Amino acid sequence: MHVEHLAWGANGTLRILDQTLLPAEERWLEIGTLEALLEALRNLRVRGAPAIGIAAAMGLVAAVRAQAAGAPRAAALALVEEAATAIALARPTAVNLRWAMDRMRRRAAATRGDGDAVLGALRAEADAIWDEDRAMCAAIAEHGQPLMRRGVRVLTHCNTGALATGGIGTALGIVLRAAERGLDPEVWVDETRPLWQGARLTAWELLRAGVRHAVLPDAAAAALLSQGKVDLVLVGADRIARNGDVANKVGTFGLAVLASHHGVPFYSAAPTSSFDPACPDGARIAIEHRGAAEVSAPFGVRVAPAGSPVFNPAFDVTPAALVTGYVTERGILHPPFEA
Amino acid sequence: MHVEHLAWGANGTLRILDQTLLPAEERWLEIGTLEALLEALRNLRVRGAPAIGIAAAMGLVAAVRAQAAGAPRAAALALVEEAATAIALARPTAVNLRWAMDRMRRRAAATRGDGDAVLGALRAEADAIWDEDRAMCAAIAEHGQPLMRRGVRVLTHCNTGALATGGIGTALGIVLRAAERGLDPEVWVDETRPLWQGARLTAWELLRAGVRHAVLPDAAAAALLSQGKVDLVLVGADRIARNGDVANKVGTFGLAVLASHHGVPFYSAAPTSSFDPACPDGARIAIEHRGAAEVSAPFGVRVAPAGSPVFNPAFDVTPAALVTGYVTERGILHPPFEA
Repeated sequence: MHVEHLAWGANGTLRILDQTLLPAEERWLEIGTLEALLEALRNLRVRGAPAIGIAAAMGLVAAVRAQAAGAPRAAALALVEEAATAIALARPTAVNLRWAMDRMRRRAAATRGDGDAVLGALRAEADAIWDEDRAMCAAIAEHGQPLMRRGVRVLTHCNTGALATGGIGTALGIVLRAAERGLDPEVWVDETRPLWQGARLTAWELLRAGVRHAVLPDAAAAALLSQGKVDLVLVGADRIARNGDVANKVGTFGLAVLASHHGVPFYSAAPTSSFDPACPDGARIAIEHRGAAEVSAPFGVRVAPAGSPVFNPAFDVTPAALVTGYVTERGILHPPFEA
Repeated sequence: MHVEHLAWGANGTLRILDQTLLPAEERWLEIGTLEALLEALRNLRVRGAPAIGIAAAMGLVAAVRAQAAGAPRAAALALVEEAATAIALARPTAVNLRWAMDRMRRRAAATRGDGDAVLGALRAEADAIWDEDRAMCAAIAEHGQPLMRRGVRVLTHCNTGALATGGIGTALGIVLRAAERGLDPEVWVDETRPLWQGARLTAWELLRAGVRHAVLPDAAAAALLSQGKVDLVLVGADRIARNGDVANKVGTFGLAVLASHHGVPFYSAAPTSSFDPACPDGARIAIEHRGAAEVSAPFGVRVAPAGSPVFNPAFDVTPAALVTGYVTERGILHPPFEA
């Protein structure tokens, strides 16, 4: 069974496993205000495109529940609108945040009755988003099985497992499912600087699931590939443009170039909600640049001089030409995509 | 002026700036025993292929001086032989260690007289190795100037500056010299996990020299290149095989593939002492694998679960086909090399 990291708390609060503390500590946070939700999203206490969509939907309920309960309909809708707008802007690159907020807004607008009715509908909508994601993960995992075979050696980047979603995961979910079925896959886990999501989260999930794996510095992936130790590169996607360009955790593009150089297949696994038909190509995807301290002073330890500037994009763009295929809940797709 | 980080201490001890503490602290170590020297080499308190050759030669004097002083010739030579053998094995990949020890052994064997005479000759030989390296760095910096032009944007990996050598540096020395001449270069500094030599050392040198630069996670280099922000990739070399394959800090090979993919020139700068004519190609170069803690618990902070294995090669091998040229003290070379 995969990890659970999201839950409803008392009175419609949102409970999340604080991913910034893994693997050293498993601490749950209870989120009951907009400020707490925005802080958790911005500081990646919950991260992964699908998971932040779900957490945002649940968190919207948590953020408005105290004021919306018993309020008139107009006041409740205004609260929802204000909170949804702020939540949608918490992180600029992932399309799932805006997608989830749009959906919650529509559900609220379509709900008759007062604040209590709106709150009830929003909680049902958040549950639906979560249930659908769980089902999407299961479908992605299933559609990805043709890429798995006994002892397959998969190189992955960042975290695309249960911790990134509401279910078994996307890219890593495929491997976890293969492991459940006894195929004994082996996973090479890029540590994924600057925030170590691979080392901290993916390795933790794989260890719990009893899947063979090893963690490596991101820059060691090229050596692995050249030594013939990788059968498949399998990553997630934060956003996929209409032409198939993939925005994903910084480092993904480099892996795609290396995979191509070594003749190793490169797949991106993501729910179709990560596809953005309004975005024609990767050049139009806004890339979030994060603060210098993540790079220059990890855990407060100064590794670069205080006076040195830092280049710290959270994502990069992999051109469609380097992507062998896209594993989605509808099957393995190839561009151009249908609407 | 570039940084000085090696010096003779009182009575022939070796003084080194402890590079593991930079950039937070500038602390000098005084090394007077073989054990202290081996500890410093193994733990990278002094690192960089040319610098460890010099430090090893100076350190050999420091290690044997107490016992060799006033000893009969045979006893002194036996001490030198024993220490040189241990020092040559302190790190397996860099050829400079063995090269320096061979040279010191030969000088000792060729010296008439007792232990004092041998010690004097060895100190002179260590000084000669240092002087030659300083001159080699200056020549490399000069021969590399045709690669520099006003505002050139250089991507580099690890540290190849003064801290890696006995002079101005190799790859970074070219940039430092260009800066001295007012060409205003800009350096993109790979942080260089797992030991952050780029962030800790290269950025520190560039900041002191007033050279424009920014530090990035290794995995962000691909994004930089795709954005057209790099004119030249310039790295060092720990060992170069007869066919031109380059063993260098892990991550170098990935940069070479990315440079090739983007049509950006890729140069390796190194003294000819890093060329190993006895090694036909990169496949024969023994690659040092280092401990798991460097990756899984940097600075004692656990980023990967204790139960997760680690893949931590210190070096990788860049095939000659991806190297545009080799900047040496004799000019820019292309394979096949003359003996």
